[in-house]
Amino acid sequence: MTTDLRIGVVGAGLMGADHITRITRRINGAVVSAVVEPDAGRAAAAAADAPGSQAFASIEDAIAADAVDAVLIATPGKFHEPVIVPSLEAKLPILCEKPLTPDSASALRILELEQKLDRPHIQVGFMRRFDDEYQALRDLIASGEPGELMMLRCVHRNPSVPDSYTQQMLINDSVVHEFDVVPWLAGSPVASVEVKFPRRNSLSPAHLREPILVLMQLENGVHVDVEMNVSVQFGYQVATEAVFEKGLARIGQPSGLQQWRDGRFSIADHTSFVTRFAPAYDAQIQRWVDAVNDGSLIDGPNAYDGYRVALACEAGVKALEGGGVVPVESTARPAFYA
Amino acid sequence: MTTDLRIGVVGAGLMGADHITRITRRINGAVVSAVVEPDAGRAAAAAADAPGSQAFASIEDAIAADAVDAVLIATPGKFHEPVIVPSLEAKLPILCEKPLTPDSASALRILELEQKLDRPHIQVGFMRRFDDEYQALRDLIASGEPGELMMLRCVHRNPSVPDSYTQQMLINDSVVHEFDVVPWLAGSPVASVEVKFPRRNSLSPAHLREPILVLMQLENGVHVDVEMNVSVQFGYQVATEAVFEKGLARIGQPSGLQQWRDGRFSIADHTSFVTRFAPAYDAQIQRWVDAVNDGSLIDGPNAYDGYRVALACEAGVKALEGGGVVPVESTARPAFYA
Amino acid sequence: MTTDLRIGVVGAGLMGADHITRITRRINGAVVSAVVEPDAGRAAAAAADAPGSQAFASIEDAIAADAVDAVLIATPGKFHEPVIVPSLEAKLPILCEKPLTPDSASALRILELEQKLDRPHIQVGFMRRFDDEYQALRDLIASGEPGELMMLRCVHRNPSVPDSYTQQMLINDSVVHEFDVVPWLAGSPVASVEVKFPRRNSLSPAHLREPILVLMQLENGVHVDVEMNVSVQFGYQVATEAVFEKGLARIGQPSGLQQWRDGRFSIADHTSFVTRFAPAYDAQIQRWVDAVNDGSLIDGPNAYDGYRVALACEAGVKALEGGGVVPVESTARPAFYA
Amino acid sequence: MTTDLRIGVVGAGLMGADHITRITRRINGAVVSAVVEPDAGRAAAAAADAPGSQAFASIEDAIAADAVDAVLIATPGKFHEPVIVPSLEAKLPILCEKPLTPDSASALRILELEQKLDRPHIQVGFMRRFDDEYQALRDLIASGEPGELMMLRCVHRNPSVPDSYTQQMLINDSVVHEFDVVPWLAGSPVASVEVKFPRRNSLSPAHLREPILVLMQLENGVHVDVEMNVSVQFGYQVATEAVFEKGLARIGQPSGLQQWRDGRFSIADHTSFVTRFAPAYDAQIQRWVDAVNDGSLIDGPNAYDGYRVALACEAGVKALEGGGVVPVESTARPAFYA
Repeated sequence: MTTDLRIGVVGAGLMGADHITRITRRINGAVVSAVVEPDAGRAAAAAADAPGSQAFASIEDAIAADAVDAVLIATPGKFHEPVIVPSLEAKLPILCEKPLTPDSASALRILELEQKLDRPHIQVGFMRRFDDEYQALRDLIASGEPGELMMLRCVHRNPSVPDSYTQQMLINDSVVHEFDVVPWLAGSPVASVEVKFPRRNSLSPAHLREPILVLMQLENGVHVDVEMNVSVQFGYQVATEAVFEKGLARIGQPSGLQQWRDGRFSIADHTSFVTRFAPAYDAQIQRWVDAVNDGSLIDGPNAYDGYRVALACEAGVKALEGGGVVPVESTARPAFYA
Repeated sequence: MTTDLRIGVVGAGLMGADHITRITRRINGAVVSAVVEPDAGRAAAAAADAPGSQAFASIEDAIAADAVDAVLIATPGKFHEPVIVPSLEAKLPILCEKPLTPDSASALRILELEQKLDRPHIQVGFMRRFDDEYQALRDLIASGEPGELMMLRCVHRNPSVPDSYTQQMLINDSVVHEFDVVPWLAGSPVASVEVKFPRRNSLSPAHLREPILVLMQLENGVHVDVEMNVSVQFGYQVATEAVFEKGLARIGQPSGLQQWRDGRFSIADHTSFVTRFAPAYDAQIQRWVDAVNDGSLIDGPNAYDGYRVALACEAGVKALEGGGVVPVESTARPAFYA
Repeated sequence: MTTDLRIGVVGAGLMGADHITRITRRINGAVVSAVVEPDAGRAAAAAADAPGSQAFASIEDAIAADAVDAVLIATPGKFHEPVIVPSLEAKLPILCEKPLTPDSASALRILELEQKLDRPHIQVGFMRRFDDEYQALRDLIASGEPGELMMLRCVHRNPSVPDSYTQQMLINDSVVHEFDVVPWLAGSPVASVEVKFPRRNSLSPAHLREPILVLMQLENGVHVDVEMNVSVQFGYQVATEAVFEKGLARIGQPSGLQQWRDGRFSIADHTSFVTRFAPAYDAQIQRWVDAVNDGSLIDGPNAYDGYRVALACEAGVKALEGGGVVPVESTARPAFYA
Repeated sequence: MTTDLRIGVVGAGLMGADHITRITRRINGAVVSAVVEPDAGRAAAAAADAPGSQAFASIEDAIAADAVDAVLIATPGKFHEPVIVPSLEAKLPILCEKPLTPDSASALRILELEQKLDRPHIQVGFMRRFDDEYQALRDLIASGEPGELMMLRCVHRNPSVPDSYTQQMLINDSVVHEFDVVPWLAGSPVASVEVKFPRRNSLSPAHLREPILVLMQLENGVHVDVEMNVSVQFGYQVATEAVFEKGLARIGQPSGLQQWRDGRFSIADHTSFVTRFAPAYDAQIQRWVDAVNDGSLIDGPNAYDGYRVALACEAGVKALEGGGVVPVESTARPAFYA
């Protein structure tokens, strides 16, 4: 009989608590063995949801107690590095919520440290790669069957955002997903970023100037635009249209119960990422658990992918604030991450 | 320069007035030269819409005055025969609103009279044959490309009906359209009719027992069902699904302006036959006018088709009232109507 | 820490092996502890997929060894009763693949035995109840929001069937799903069954006369038809249109990657129940495991539901072979199964 | 009886011949009375299609012979001005194929000449304004119901272009349509134009660098992008997505006969503007004829609209060739064209 993977979850806020429930109730082959959270109340509440788990004040304590086989990091990005470093030193597999770290310099430090190990140990939590539709689109692009890819036209629309959402978060918290998934789809890194400002949504929080349109050029010449729109009121929508030489493909359209009422045909669409990506969140962790249990290489986004995203975010913020076309540094993917 | 076809419109009620406007303002190559209507007020109002037309109290008068090249009959069905007979005797082309006549015996008398002429002179006003989607479906069936046709599953849904709409009209006024268009699609006459009663719609007028489901067997074995549903409130919908040996096809779905609002994707659907079949009504008359002007054979439903529909309606009413499977007499199509 | 539910899987054929993989790799909170299978080779192969499981020649042996907390039966229907009886006597929770038993008399014997326990112990494997779209449709019907339900128009289409598929299996193996899910959707038992024969598909195996159209009347007056079509070549499709007094709803349409190629817009549709219902199969077992682990009442189809399906199948086969409208016996749901 | 409007068609090439057939066979209330075409062979062929028409070598001759009540100009753009001038001097209503003239200076000369008349006499042949879907979208924008418009995202895709199609024609022959219809939809003129270059389509003619992405800012702040793509192989597609503060709307999706075949659901899409805009071409001319016959103001694009389009094209070509954001001169709409 196999033994379940013992995961230490670091951070027991909203996202951490959600991952604890997921692992405890839906993921096969893993248990939450440790909750690392300085807030004692949160730690206790989270541990109650994960029977058999222990609470620790730091990841170092959990490692010292030999309580974890793997680490899932769900704290805000600025706290990632101090958790990643001891975990890497203990040679533990890590699933780190996005972003890897909040800037490219710290991401680079992580890369250097990780490359002292025998192989990549970090997966970054860009769960779109585990969505069936994104996977089908990537397969289609890779097949070459509709000709070469020429453009990707992405929309990323949220019904609303809290007041704490800042202008920079349009890039660092939202477009960050496209900075990961677009190169994964198109097989080429981001070369430059530019931001355009359409008419402002009068329903946005007063401190936001949005929607914005983020234009990217990939190194292979593919043009990408991302309509980033966080006060659309009507629903949650993440869709991509791929323009090929001989055809088009689109993902992210509504599906499900169709109704005819009052002279209209309609289909319920999503109103939150929670329903849109629920299976992708589960699949992301299940496949990571399986890879760790099997000893096989992780197939999700690794630390190098996280570093490339940090570079693109830095260019994106510059474009957001200073205008113009901002280049993204070209880097060679180390063989370690091939 | 060609001379416009001079059409005498018989009956200036709702349908007649609509045809007068259509011919006068939208149909090329024809004018309304005569309005035949015993009600003097209606006749005057209709004539005012058709500059240059004359009012007549009877079709015989209009013919005697040499005022018409062709006749369009838009009176209720029970008044059709007395107009058709003198028009046929005058060898005039006739476009007769459905039904040809209200029963098969009178339809048969019309057929016999018409066959004394050199070729068919009557087209019956089943305008669905002129709808682009029905034509595309018929072409697909005829192509044999998706294999043999096995079933046709039709829906015919109206938002509501006036109090004057009777139980028999479910067959004689509504399903009558499917009795024409189904054999035209499937290339085989109706062999039997049966009626099933689902749960009654509590929003129907008190004297109606509907919706009904009309089941037909065609002579070639194809099964057809028609959901006849006249109090659906939500819209007007005429759709058909064709079940082939190797695939399916469907017509009658909504198209047009798509909207995402309030967590739903929706498309406006029709709420009346007026918008759904507007181009078909125009095409029906335009093609009849062209055929008459060119001297070519009419390609719309002819009197024999009208007679077959009358037979099917008689069986349909028997099935509606007495239950069971009611056979429709098999008849051979005369060479005259080939 | 909770202990995983120890499930004994009876039958290690195709379906049994699939369930063993599912429980071992995807279902949280349960393990396969025993494989009951007389064929020693199959038993060994299956046990290899479930680390820690033991092989038994009979369910009685597994129970005697105290090796199981619950039983999942995946043998052909005619072998169900001899497994259910000792399992019920041992007061074990049972998830029994459909059908409960192959006829209503044996189903009734199971009901009588089960009612000697404190509450229902059997869930029947009709997994459609766990499909998101069916659940959304059921919620809509229950809401009363679009008015009363008047008709359910179901299609059940398979690309092809093996030569071993018999004429009676159209009812007992295929329509059996609608016999369960339709009363669950509409809140009313099947009152009568009738079968119509459209034109035969020339691509069907020579011994089959299909497609067929199965008409049902429910006790509340709702009309249901099921197009049962097992040689459609083009794909696998299970769809339902619900006709309400004020609107329509439909489930089972394609979703996913949309493409424009060669003058056509297209979406990949399913070609097998394996992909169409994969999440429902998982959900069915996960929710059963959760209910058993929590000690709560199972919410899937119980033995009484299985008995009602057996009655409907018997009427369906009579209608298939003898024609006409065959009544389904009306029975009162025992309070035990409320 | 009304007299038909006598139209002189100038230019009997492909487009002119098509308009002659349209007026002669489909447009009610008008006839082709004159064909103006220096090529004698073409003139004769065209006149044969329009019974009763006369051939003339110049528009001046046709006017001198009192042969025309109105003029339809279907020559290439560089020949428009010499036909418009004498027609305006003769106070004849003009329907001029797009563009009004090939540059803004000549367009301005036309405006000045026209304003000496009592009211606008020129309609420009931007037929998209007569398309049902564009009209529905404009109504929706004008309603303000989904909030303010923030972006228009247009695609304009052709299967292929002839070798004679030049790089500048991407703007002057193709995007020219959006330069007219976008301000009409959004109620605001184009303020600036920019061009982006995605990966080149290897299937394009060797002298073309396309697809291109044309970005526009409107004076009211609305952002517009037009994907101009003329070698897409798969079909002809003109679609627009309007992004509002509270919702989305889209036009230009496929409609019609839906098929399920070979594991796919598909709908035939257009492969040419001929089918996509056939009803709009007819409607454009019918409404112009009606307005001229009734003496009412034309409601199609007038000469001022044509001038604004010429300004936008000039900016577009500069952006295509020189890069960067090119402003479009702001002008005040003269009351004459209100």
